[in-house]
Amino acid sequence: MYEAILKPRRVAVVGASTEEGKVGRVVFDNLRRSPSIDEVIPVNPKAAEIAGVPAVASVDQLDGAVDLAIICVPAKLVPSVVDVCGRKGIRGVIVISAGFKEVGGEGKVLEAELRRVCHTHRIDMIGPNCLGVLNVTDGINASFATRLPPVGHIGLMSQSGALATALLDIAEDQNIGFSVVVSVGNKAVIDETDLLRAFTEDDETRVIAAYLEDITRGEDFVLLAEKAARSKPIIVIKSGTSQAGAVAASSHTGSIAGAEVAYECAFARSGIIRAESVEQMFDYALAFGNQPLPSGRRVAVITNAGGPGIMAVDACERESLGLAEFADGTRGYLTENLPAAANTANPVDVLGDAPAARYELALRAVLGEPGVDAVVVVLTPQAMTDADATARAIIETAAGSTKPVLCSFVGGQKVAGGIATLREHDIPTYPTPERAVHCVRAMSEYHEWLNRPPRVVKRFPVNRYKVERVIKVALRKGTAEIGEEDAKKILRAYGFDTPHGALCRTPDEAVEFARTIGYPVVLKIASPDILHKSDVGGVKLSLPDDEALRDAFELMMLRVGKRQPKAHILGAFVQEMIAGGKEVILGVNRDPQFGHMVMFGMGGVYVEVLKDVAFHLAPITKDEALEMLVGTKTYALLAGVRGERPVDIDAIAESIQRLSQLVVDFPNIEEMDINPLKVGAAGGGAWAVDARFRISEEQL
Amino acid sequence: MYEAILKPRRVAVVGASTEEGKVGRVVFDNLRRSPSIDEVIPVNPKAAEIAGVPAVASVDQLDGAVDLAIICVPAKLVPSVVDVCGRKGIRGVIVISAGFKEVGGEGKVLEAELRRVCHTHRIDMIGPNCLGVLNVTDGINASFATRLPPVGHIGLMSQSGALATALLDIAEDQNIGFSVVVSVGNKAVIDETDLLRAFTEDDETRVIAAYLEDITRGEDFVLLAEKAARSKPIIVIKSGTSQAGAVAASSHTGSIAGAEVAYECAFARSGIIRAESVEQMFDYALAFGNQPLPSGRRVAVITNAGGPGIMAVDACERESLGLAEFADGTRGYLTENLPAAANTANPVDVLGDAPAARYELALRAVLGEPGVDAVVVVLTPQAMTDADATARAIIETAAGSTKPVLCSFVGGQKVAGGIATLREHDIPTYPTPERAVHCVRAMSEYHEWLNRPPRVVKRFPVNRYKVERVIKVALRKGTAEIGEEDAKKILRAYGFDTPHGALCRTPDEAVEFARTIGYPVVLKIASPDILHKSDVGGVKLSLPDDEALRDAFELMMLRVGKRQPKAHILGAFVQEMIAGGKEVILGVNRDPQFGHMVMFGMGGVYVEVLKDVAFHLAPITKDEALEMLVGTKTYALLAGVRGERPVDIDAIAESIQRLSQLVVDFPNIEEMDINPLKVGAAGGGAWAVDARFRISEEQL
Repeated sequence: MYEAILKPRRVAVVGASTEEGKVGRVVFDNLRRSPSIDEVIPVNPKAAEIAGVPAVASVDQLDGAVDLAIICVPAKLVPSVVDVCGRKGIRGVIVISAGFKEVGGEGKVLEAELRRVCHTHRIDMIGPNCLGVLNVTDGINASFATRLPPVGHIGLMSQSGALATALLDIAEDQNIGFSVVVSVGNKAVIDETDLLRAFTEDDETRVIAAYLEDITRGEDFVLLAEKAARSKPIIVIKSGTSQAGAVAASSHTGSIAGAEVAYECAFARSGIIRAESVEQMFDYALAFGNQPLPSGRRVAVITNAGGPGIMAVDACERESLGLAEFADGTRGYLTENLPAAANTANPVDVLGDAPAARYELALRAVLGEPGVDAVVVVLTPQAMTDADATARAIIETAAGSTKPVLCSFVGGQKVAGGIATLREHDIPTYPTPERAVHCVRAMSEYHEWLNRPPRVVKRFPVNRYKVERVIKVALRKGTAEIGEEDAKKILRAYGFDTPHGALCRTPDEAVEFARTIGYPVVLKIASPDILHKSDVGGVKLSLPDDEALRDAFELMMLRVGKRQPKAHILGAFVQEMIAGGKEVILGVNRDPQFGHMVMFGMGGVYVEVLKDVAFHLAPITKDEALEMLVGTKTYALLAGVRGERPVDIDAIAESIQRLSQLVVDFPNIEEMDINPLKVGAAGGGAWAVDARFRISEEQL
Repeated sequence: MYEAILKPRRVAVVGASTEEGKVGRVVFDNLRRSPSIDEVIPVNPKAAEIAGVPAVASVDQLDGAVDLAIICVPAKLVPSVVDVCGRKGIRGVIVISAGFKEVGGEGKVLEAELRRVCHTHRIDMIGPNCLGVLNVTDGINASFATRLPPVGHIGLMSQSGALATALLDIAEDQNIGFSVVVSVGNKAVIDETDLLRAFTEDDETRVIAAYLEDITRGEDFVLLAEKAARSKPIIVIKSGTSQAGAVAASSHTGSIAGAEVAYECAFARSGIIRAESVEQMFDYALAFGNQPLPSGRRVAVITNAGGPGIMAVDACERESLGLAEFADGTRGYLTENLPAAANTANPVDVLGDAPAARYELALRAVLGEPGVDAVVVVLTPQAMTDADATARAIIETAAGSTKPVLCSFVGGQKVAGGIATLREHDIPTYPTPERAVHCVRAMSEYHEWLNRPPRVVKRFPVNRYKVERVIKVALRKGTAEIGEEDAKKILRAYGFDTPHGALCRTPDEAVEFARTIGYPVVLKIASPDILHKSDVGGVKLSLPDDEALRDAFELMMLRVGKRQPKAHILGAFVQEMIAGGKEVILGVNRDPQFGHMVMFGMGGVYVEVLKDVAFHLAPITKDEALEMLVGTKTYALLAGVRGERPVDIDAIAESIQRLSQLVVDFPNIEEMDINPLKVGAAGGGAWAVDARFRISEEQL
């Protein structure tokens, strides 16, 4: 994929400069130093030659087939230059020049024009406003980065060119190897989803790392990432999370959800490993790129010092990892072969005077122990310590093991040689035991994601046509808000149970209807303008008889009229009273990037005060619906505390699935909630007691 | 303090060896290289001289006054050697030798003997089983560490010698300076509390850093730390946190509290800054040791690249720091003086081509802005970046500022020079913006601690004598458990309101008493053997009349008798029914190290399911009691949600203070809880509806 950009043979540098150090010149020089490039042609109307290479005055005048053009001319010239490239049949373009979308105004117009030109000629373009592309595997530096980093297996894309520069500088320092590095710039044509596909197909790339500030095509990215992550770990730094708080919100669900939650959901769904900093990204990349995954969470620690051993163990607990227990055989073997003062339980303390051989013996024993899923080897530089020999012993012993071995050589110069040796031989090592343990946790989670049960989204038989009609009628009336009565029609069409009820305009109508369903009843104000009915005195529960209902009806009209004089009142809803059960809330919010997120929370104070809610992107499987329930802190309240009977968990899970199906079928549902969904005891089902929808005015 | 150990002039090395590289020889050589040591005398019965210095056969034969003896002979010889040191008038001893408490058995006996000898001769001893002492300020290396680290202002104590070695190695690498380093070993005589005092008194020590696995005298340590932290930041790594889960628990309070909670409480009380790893300890030490504290939480970020700038901002939000807002004047100044494309709001983006002067201009402007409390300067190595010149500009601009400036120069070789320059001039710099921001947070918290209101512990007039009597009677009866009736007597003596109630042995007695207090009443089983009454059907609420009370009484006796046939039943408690109000739980647990911890939590499912509780060490001020309430996630339920009236917050705070006074007055209260404390609306007070105590059998 993107052969023209990633593996060009003949490259034109448009804006190649006679002046050393200028961007157009640095790019030209870099390409000339790239051994697998056949020819680099400088394009410059004012120079006869650049560094001894005859220049061409314009792209027009290029002879023969050119794979890739790299553009370093001022922004306003770029669209026309790229247009000429297209007419010359050039399929790959990298636009280094800045001055586009990122400066707003005129720049935005230029970028739109540039994109149009690329689409017209079917040009694959990286940028504009980027550092360029480094195909490290093949030694091609099509960027203005000073040099290529070490060769390795990390494929990196970065939405910040400056950050890419910094990362390359760190990588060189720490001997971290890359397969390919792409600075994506403004992503006018090729975006992170395209590159994700390209990196997935690249055999030399074992780990995909990305720094992203936004994701252009959220749903496509998630779908592709979900596939891609099955073969390669994808580590993403997603910045801009603090915007989350700023998302305006108009309802409960909205006020809790936000862009950040959508990213969390999207990453969790697609197996993306999220890193919090560049440090963590490299920590993960070294672990994932070089070591097998642990098949469980049981960690063994080997150390030559008590303190750092304890710190590793503490970290295991913090990271929800278990400390491996050794079988008697393993303990016996260690006891026989290690000095008497050594600790042969986990963490294994090989003592301060441990030579390499003692580490080797302990490592071999714990790798052979079936109760161990991963090993963290800690070393501090003590009087007798030979960090380098120990590194070599670890490399040899870990070779071919199906269990990951991560090290933490804690120290400075005294362990530097050992660290270098480990790195060279693909054993990750970290400055602190905590960072090693943190990687083991990320690896276990990824392993669990890979081995999750197949995602089977159940489709229930529903009455789609009826929902379509309700929505159409609402839109024809010019309202985006669908109130209780119609909302329940929609839900019933999708198999939800709702209490019997009817909209009544007068006390007489109310009493008449109440008699048909039997007392006690609930009375609720019906108005498209009132979202939180109880806040305005618009809900009255447990009305026992005609008189109470009549009184409540008239009082409610009086009060609501006073409190919300502008609200259009349709009447009041008389409804069967559902006794007992627990109240939960279901909701849906549509994220502009990732689509519908379904929310579950315990009703009342739990959602309002504790914000104890779980989100998941639709469509949702039964397993995922159950995970949402278990994921809340108040799950125990559903499962039954202090001898209470559990509620109908399956009914909630089914409701979540049905809701998921509904929003997948009707993408123009902007927002909705069922508040409350009343859930009976196990087997007793669930009722959508109140609900509302907001529909976007897009076509169905 | 500890002049003999920290600033000796004449030192004897007992066990100095003729063989190079042996511990006794390394210590001897290190001391000989220490310029401020006047004389080092080797003690060795088998050698005439060590490295050309005439040896003495035994401590006995030392001539003249010796300040310090360093002991490197086998453990079993140590007590007698130290005894001779004492008799020779040597006041300071460092025991390097291992083989004491840490090996158990005989070693424990030896250590007790060693301690006894030190006490007899009033010897100050470091160790045994340690690396030794490095007085870096005065260039004295009284240890077997290879060399002295750079001179600086961190005073370090470490309970792990190996970790100290690793830290010294790191420090040398990163040019981190120390004033003094003490490897505390088994702490047989001098412990962390003693060293804390010594470091506090040492003028060259600006920051105290400690790696601790346990604290020997918890209460002393907390009291001293609280004083010491007023003048110097104390940064502690406390390992062994994962033991917390193992603490056995016999009641609600106990099952939630644990050693880890006690450490958290102790550190919070005494202003100790807790580090999670050695990396974080150094990060903090560099920030605290070199920069002024921020007087608020408003951070300004200056960056030459968007991406890392956003990451810094994200980190600020994660760390509960605010992003500073600039006054119009500041923004105007920046807009006038920075290039048009620069971002002049926070984060200030000085652009990729920023020279040092542009950083200087921006830094000067934001340091002068009253809305800024701290500045984080981010730099990535781009084409035009001069990291070293920028470092110098930052150093000059930050000099003399009362606001902290922390940097993150992100990169490898390209920024290494700048990093070194910053370090040399006391500007901390970190590999990622996140780590810089994390330090700002720790600094703000410490500043807030320093400026907290004065701790005034209120003493209420109480009836101490009455409590003494109740406890004595219980102990005389041989029971450690004090049940509801006596527990309430204790509480009433300390000013708690309790509902009217009486222990009744028969239905007739119950009815008679109920008539005097009026219906409805509550009936509760009375038995010292039943802690959770409602679990065995031992609580019946809202009994309206004689008949219901009689029925309930007989049924309760029948049921409880069946369910807990072994329980000794005293009868049942008839009690006034407190209507309305919210239920909360107060409890106390005594930590063996730190004394009494008071717990507050919302009643019912909140404490059982959500574990939503707050702890604080007694004695507790009113501010601290209120902080405990606000510190729970469910505080909003007390303050009133959805138009509910707030409860009597002051009554809960007063109850916490009274409870604190009670356990301070009666240290042998092991454990107690008030469950529930029923709290009325504001001004309505609180009732201890049920309570129990467990008393230790120590003398009052």
